[in-house]
Amino acid sequence: MPDSTLKKAVVLVSGGLDSATVLAMARAQDFACHALSFDYGQRHRVELQAAARVAAALGAVEHKTISLDLGGIGGSALTDAAIAVPEEGGEGIPVTYVPARNTVFLALALGWAEVLAAQDIFIGVNAVDYSGYPDCRPEFIAAFEKTANLATKAGVEGRPFHIHTPLMQMSKADIIRTGQHLGVDYAITVSCYQADELGRACGRCDSCRLRREGFIAAGTVDPTPYAADRP
Amino acid sequence: MPDSTLKKAVVLVSGGLDSATVLAMARAQDFACHALSFDYGQRHRVELQAAARVAAALGAVEHKTISLDLGGIGGSALTDAAIAVPEEGGEGIPVTYVPARNTVFLALALGWAEVLAAQDIFIGVNAVDYSGYPDCRPEFIAAFEKTANLATKAGVEGRPFHIHTPLMQMSKADIIRTGQHLGVDYAITVSCYQADELGRACGRCDSCRLRREGFIAAGTVDPTPYAADRP
Repeated sequence: MPDSTLKKAVVLVSGGLDSATVLAMARAQDFACHALSFDYGQRHRVELQAAARVAAALGAVEHKTISLDLGGIGGSALTDAAIAVPEEGGEGIPVTYVPARNTVFLALALGWAEVLAAQDIFIGVNAVDYSGYPDCRPEFIAAFEKTANLATKAGVEGRPFHIHTPLMQMSKADIIRTGQHLGVDYAITVSCYQADELGRACGRCDSCRLRREGFIAAGTVDPTPYAADRP
Repeated sequence: MPDSTLKKAVVLVSGGLDSATVLAMARAQDFACHALSFDYGQRHRVELQAAARVAAALGAVEHKTISLDLGGIGGSALTDAAIAVPEEGGEGIPVTYVPARNTVFLALALGWAEVLAAQDIFIGVNAVDYSGYPDCRPEFIAAFEKTANLATKAGVEGRPFHIHTPLMQMSKADIIRTGQHLGVDYAITVSCYQADELGRACGRCDSCRLRREGFIAAGTVDPTPYAADRP
């Protein structure tokens, strides 16, 4: 049963490694965590099943999935079947960038937080291994937080929101070590942009590459189920 | 056929009086207008039919409706059947406030604008007759615009977005006069928070009251279809 004396937080949970770690960190700070995921037409739908597993395993009070049709907007390899997921790193902002994704996700998290009377929102953005997405940078988060406090009844009435980004300055190896210390089972998470229907990772896309390198750098076993037996 | 030499804009069109006027104003500024509406579980669903009529009548290039389940979040008389729509004005922020609504809508408009390579977004917010919603104020719009330009590939690469709020400082009467000058037929718009299935207004909610007073102040005929023959 939820402990009603705890402060509530909305935690964005994608089903990946980073957001699972964030949820564990928010729980370790004694927040009652309301996990939020999005069904936005992403290719990697198995991540929604992973999100549900992660929310349950790490003690979220509840888990909500909001459907929204970002596929109708298009413009990203993650939502548009006509754009291939790249399998090696390149320069600049990659085609897996989803236009305004974190702005949309944080806006919806903000709406739910206000309804819950929560003032804390956690998101697993990272400025180190961030794949070049502009909406993962500290200056974006700071601007969004300011906007949130001007946008809402709670903000205007003196109950300001705080956007927590505990992974912002951590390397992937630090994130993995922190999560393992907090008991996160990374075998239940899915990071791959094109995981198969069993949740097995391709081992080749940007997200797999960053994850794999992270486990190597952390000096720990990579529990990721890969589709093929690749090194 | 759309004129491809025109600058593109995304225009938020709710089906109401204000956004219809904004669309007419954007067209008068020679923008190729991509109209965007949201099916967010609002009570006043007939406004979506009105939005389609408005987009067609006022020469939008296309009209897209994005579905998202704000009803799952709750917290507003507009999306939660358990909260009654008030029929007289009160103090403070009313229960018709939808948490973070304009932040969510602008975030999705931003995503679509980036895909379209449009740099201009129009929204019919108004700081005069604004019903007390915090996300209708100029400081919110300025903060969102700044966030948008930090959030996006286009913003980072030097193609900044501009959020246009042409109604911001206009009275309802000014808005009506401007729209009528530009040929807007307000009979096809629906402002009422609880319009019936034929699109007829209740004549009593906040939104009806502001609209009715606007036509009186503009000294022009109110073409709104009302459900009952009320003064």
